[in-house]
Amino acid sequence: MNYFYLVPIASLFALGFAFYFFKKMMKESEGTEQMKTIAKYVREGAMSYLKQQYKVVAIVFIILAMIFAVMAYFGLQNNWVPFAFLTGGFFSGLAGFFGMKTATYASARTANAAKNSLNKGLQIAFRSGAVMGLVVVGLALFDISAWYLILDHFIENADSGHKLIMITTTMLTFGMGASTQALFARVGGGIYTKAADVGADLVGKVEAGIPEDDPRNPATIADNVGDNVGDVAGMGADLYESYCGSILATAALGASAFVLNPAMQLKAVFAPMIIAAIGVFLSILGIFLVRTGENADMKKLMAALNRGVNVSAILIALLTFVALYLLGFENWKGLSFSVISGLLAGIVIGQGTEYFTSHSFRPTQLIAESGKTGPATVIISGMGAGMISTFIPVITIALAILSSYLCAIGFDVEHMISGENLSMGLYGIGIAAVGMLSTLGITLATDAYGPIADNAGGNAEMCGLGEDVRKRTDALDALGNTTAATGKGFAIGSAALTALALLASYIEEIKIGMLRLGQTVLEFVDGGTVEIAKASFIDFMNYYQVTLMNPKVLVGIFIGSMMAFLFCGLTMNAVGRAAQKMVEEVRRQFREIAGILEGASTPDYAKCVEISTKGAQREMLLPSLLAIAIPIVTGIILGVPGVMGLLAGGLGSGFVLAVFMANSGGAWDNAKKYVEEGNLGGKGSDVHKATVVGDTVGDPFKDTSGPSLNILIKLMSMISIVMAGLTVAWSLL
Amino acid sequence: MNYFYLVPIASLFALGFAFYFFKKMMKESEGTEQMKTIAKYVREGAMSYLKQQYKVVAIVFIILAMIFAVMAYFGLQNNWVPFAFLTGGFFSGLAGFFGMKTATYASARTANAAKNSLNKGLQIAFRSGAVMGLVVVGLALFDISAWYLILDHFIENADSGHKLIMITTTMLTFGMGASTQALFARVGGGIYTKAADVGADLVGKVEAGIPEDDPRNPATIADNVGDNVGDVAGMGADLYESYCGSILATAALGASAFVLNPAMQLKAVFAPMIIAAIGVFLSILGIFLVRTGENADMKKLMAALNRGVNVSAILIALLTFVALYLLGFENWKGLSFSVISGLLAGIVIGQGTEYFTSHSFRPTQLIAESGKTGPATVIISGMGAGMISTFIPVITIALAILSSYLCAIGFDVEHMISGENLSMGLYGIGIAAVGMLSTLGITLATDAYGPIADNAGGNAEMCGLGEDVRKRTDALDALGNTTAATGKGFAIGSAALTALALLASYIEEIKIGMLRLGQTVLEFVDGGTVEIAKASFIDFMNYYQVTLMNPKVLVGIFIGSMMAFLFCGLTMNAVGRAAQKMVEEVRRQFREIAGILEGASTPDYAKCVEISTKGAQREMLLPSLLAIAIPIVTGIILGVPGVMGLLAGGLGSGFVLAVFMANSGGAWDNAKKYVEEGNLGGKGSDVHKATVVGDTVGDPFKDTSGPSLNILIKLMSMISIVMAGLTVAWSLL
Repeated sequence: MNYFYLVPIASLFALGFAFYFFKKMMKESEGTEQMKTIAKYVREGAMSYLKQQYKVVAIVFIILAMIFAVMAYFGLQNNWVPFAFLTGGFFSGLAGFFGMKTATYASARTANAAKNSLNKGLQIAFRSGAVMGLVVVGLALFDISAWYLILDHFIENADSGHKLIMITTTMLTFGMGASTQALFARVGGGIYTKAADVGADLVGKVEAGIPEDDPRNPATIADNVGDNVGDVAGMGADLYESYCGSILATAALGASAFVLNPAMQLKAVFAPMIIAAIGVFLSILGIFLVRTGENADMKKLMAALNRGVNVSAILIALLTFVALYLLGFENWKGLSFSVISGLLAGIVIGQGTEYFTSHSFRPTQLIAESGKTGPATVIISGMGAGMISTFIPVITIALAILSSYLCAIGFDVEHMISGENLSMGLYGIGIAAVGMLSTLGITLATDAYGPIADNAGGNAEMCGLGEDVRKRTDALDALGNTTAATGKGFAIGSAALTALALLASYIEEIKIGMLRLGQTVLEFVDGGTVEIAKASFIDFMNYYQVTLMNPKVLVGIFIGSMMAFLFCGLTMNAVGRAAQKMVEEVRRQFREIAGILEGASTPDYAKCVEISTKGAQREMLLPSLLAIAIPIVTGIILGVPGVMGLLAGGLGSGFVLAVFMANSGGAWDNAKKYVEEGNLGGKGSDVHKATVVGDTVGDPFKDTSGPSLNILIKLMSMISIVMAGLTVAWSLL
Repeated sequence: MNYFYLVPIASLFALGFAFYFFKKMMKESEGTEQMKTIAKYVREGAMSYLKQQYKVVAIVFIILAMIFAVMAYFGLQNNWVPFAFLTGGFFSGLAGFFGMKTATYASARTANAAKNSLNKGLQIAFRSGAVMGLVVVGLALFDISAWYLILDHFIENADSGHKLIMITTTMLTFGMGASTQALFARVGGGIYTKAADVGADLVGKVEAGIPEDDPRNPATIADNVGDNVGDVAGMGADLYESYCGSILATAALGASAFVLNPAMQLKAVFAPMIIAAIGVFLSILGIFLVRTGENADMKKLMAALNRGVNVSAILIALLTFVALYLLGFENWKGLSFSVISGLLAGIVIGQGTEYFTSHSFRPTQLIAESGKTGPATVIISGMGAGMISTFIPVITIALAILSSYLCAIGFDVEHMISGENLSMGLYGIGIAAVGMLSTLGITLATDAYGPIADNAGGNAEMCGLGEDVRKRTDALDALGNTTAATGKGFAIGSAALTALALLASYIEEIKIGMLRLGQTVLEFVDGGTVEIAKASFIDFMNYYQVTLMNPKVLVGIFIGSMMAFLFCGLTMNAVGRAAQKMVEEVRRQFREIAGILEGASTPDYAKCVEISTKGAQREMLLPSLLAIAIPIVTGIILGVPGVMGLLAGGLGSGFVLAVFMANSGGAWDNAKKYVEEGNLGGKGSDVHKATVVGDTVGDPFKDTSGPSLNILIKLMSMISIVMAGLTVAWSLL
């Protein structure tokens, strides 16, 4: 139990440093009056969006909490769930609020600091990003440790092994709150940001021929707000969910894997939390290592960030060995290698993403070259490259799954899928997910850094700061584009591993659901019986016939695969429709407000912010409700085998589709930049125009639909977990 | 046994009528000298492509046949496989050859007939398409019945139940030949046709501003050749494979489901063949019902085709009841409803496809409207609509799977997945696939009709036939576009059901593979044993732990999902690269051959044909070899659970991806046509230009990558089936 206190301590450490970084940033000057005004516009826009979104989310939360309360009343779920659901959502929302507040305060300060020094600019932007990273891990660990202590105190059970299983499966359902919050943050934020971006580009850049971030464009503030809404708050909520989900699922798998070994069971439950805590301390260390000299080029800036992340990762790997050894795991080496599998996979996926999306490499250059024959071939080659690029993350995740599983069972290949080994192996996969996410404090800092630098650039452009300042903010922004791409790879990879851990722990919930309903034995078709409390995963698979010959499983796989595409299609169309409205508004302003294009009068920025906000709110509902409803309906009709098929199918095609969309989008973005740097005719050439089309198509790919899939694959698992009791009690087939 | 002779009789009937239609068509006049010359160019181009392709395919066939021979030598496969593999490939190739020969003879004759009469034109084009349809079903049934008789004669076995299982599992592996042939026909043909089309459009329409099918465009003959190569030969080989695969897989499932009921076992094996034979007779009847009056509009033309298909379908449904009753099935009603599930699903998928791709409906009109804001929004909205459209086929297939399963087991929901019911239910799914494909004789006629009408239009345009002739060929062509879209839906749907039947019969092959290697009992982890000859599907699932908790299955699902995208990406890029070469060649000819654009000199058509041919041959190899290699490698590393995961994952995401690509592509094509008909500014407007970009992107979507996925999902199953012996003998994990 003593080890456990590392977790709340790490939480307080993270929150403390976040506060420290925030305070320090706030002491910096925001620059000229104009810079302050622009920053204020963006800040107000972002906050008004957040307020609006939280209103909608609050309604959904109240409805869901009431449903859970009813379920608890009928014994289909435990009584803690409604409350825990609310705290999960509340803390996730709080993290988003703090992160975005910080980001919107930091951008003008970053621009102002860049007047004098590149390093100073980097420090402000990066450490402000770190506020987001640390608030996310801090609040997550706080929520987890608080609930652990509460449940440990209140849940009474003679048998301690059983008690731990009760605690962990109860806690697992709390992830639902984080999931629901993440859903709306990612989907709503994603629609907002791209409606604004696409709308601003289509009229501003293409029709009026004014540059990006030009203050004459009425949608430019909305565009900058969007970066914060989508890439800070959305990304933060996404990873908050993965972080909680992977820790809680692994704890549940640990309680089950070590149920016959009381001495180790508690430690197996704590292990993922402790690895996370270690990650927090070392992330903070890593954050301090990010610094650079003056006149640093892109390479040196990248090296500065990499230094921070890599030192954290290596030290986490080393300390994992120590921690698991001290905790007394018999197979501490194997489990540590499981953790390392996850850590490594995160890094490899990031590198692979960079190869396929950076214009330093052939794939993206080829996309730019295909612009010689017009926009159609840019689209074709970009989609082709994005689809091909999926093989790296898939093979990496496949290897991570197999190696973390095999390491955890001590390479007992002979009995790879025996009852005990299956539990241990799945625990290994879970702990690999935790390993991948252990660096979250610092990797999320590099993510949240991106939009801050982007907004700093926007601020500098709008306020007409000098050439050399723009050059510095451009350098910071370019770095942000790279971290955005690798960050997306990391987010998708971690979502996949987390969803896998959730899929495994789904059966734990089914077990508890049965016990809660008073069922004590599994009766098999052939007449055999197994006591549920002692039943292994394999027993449950046999009982429910969750095999690939079961038509319910196969139908589930079809529907799951479809869900990924349907969800994507709905969000793509949402962006299209919302952008359309933005285009009309910008055109209206150009037409009706005299003197905008000459810079003589100020456009009505607020109106554009409002359009994006309303569009996002309206458009996010259908895909979101579908993502919540389909797993429930599948459970009611097809039962456990159908749900598991749904989750596996959704995970498989959702993961690959997400990678494809993120990488195609990133590559199109950079292909355009490659041309803008003077290649293939440079800005204004026909090739440039063709690549601008690619970039615009890529916007919803990489910033709306692709990232939303991360949420979909986790949320569908989470909702199935929470609804497990219902599925146990009643299903049609 | 007497019933069985219906099958060879149907085969001879089909071939006889094909010969009759061919002869009748050949008697028609090919029109003016110029028309003959153009037709000759296209015919020669098509035949030279086919010759080139068959050369490459022959090499692959020889290598694979040798591998199978070696496997047979080591007892990993039976001795018949190498020979049967070759006949499957040979007959599929022969069907492609006849179909394309007919199509290329028919187009000028259709154009010539359209000089006088719309009905005459329709008759020639449609009955020439019917040659393809009838040759495919005729040769398939011939191959199947011949091999049945051979094996029945040669395979010696005391126990007749066991003998039938040996025969059917052996025959199943013959599908491999059809699969391999289809792979190259679809992938090669798909690359050819779109390289030519995209290349012709990019330079001709966009740069030089000359209309489609203009004789001044050097790539125009290659474009017309491509229609035959891709849509006739490729589509034919694709459906030949589905047709054989579904019949053979269902026969194997029938032998297994009725193994304890010797009286019915043989009839269960014959049932799918007999349903197919009934389908042949009624398809021929349906073909004769397709006729129309003069001055028929699009609606009436469509009604004429629908009359033929619907009458066939309804009569097949009725006769199925009679046939299954006469065969003596206890549950003849239920099984007949299984057949009807498949038939209905085919029709619903076709209708859904039409809704999402025809410009008579909102989705496609909205895509056209999004052209107001440029090509980027056309792409975004087209992709969104395509992704959303996947829900119709997926839900339809899901319902078809469940209902055909439940009907076959007499709605015994209580014991839905018990050993006996599982066998019967899977047989029901198989027979639903056969039901869907039973109308193939006539549905393939409507497919092959499309390119003939298209080429007739091309011929009329190139030869400058009068306005009224063009109007008639345009009407025929427009009808062809609709049948092409619904035909694609049908091809994908049937591929999915066929792949499902193949997935189920994979385990039959594993069983036989074990017996061949001398293994007689399954020893379970918990110590129990089951005799293999008596083991149920459930026993095998338990033995191999093919559950969704097994990491090997999960990794397989990931890799399968990826394969769909990787394969698509490679074929997309292949089209991009080959089109690039075509563009360069056309530009060169415009530059170097004086007077082309003025119509004073003839372009070098042959050079463009050669470029497409070479490009297709070169580019088809990598994706094809990957599709063959990955299932083998997965089997070697991950064993049976990995392979089944691979197949399920590939099937799920491949099916959805294929529908998405086909529908997005079809919708873009028709959005452009919608504008060309005078909406939203009409031809030459900015909206038109934007929709042309969509159409060009859609070309490889709907005619290369999308349809190739049909092959991928079937081929991966087929290769796994053939390699089952290897997987049984040896796998790493």
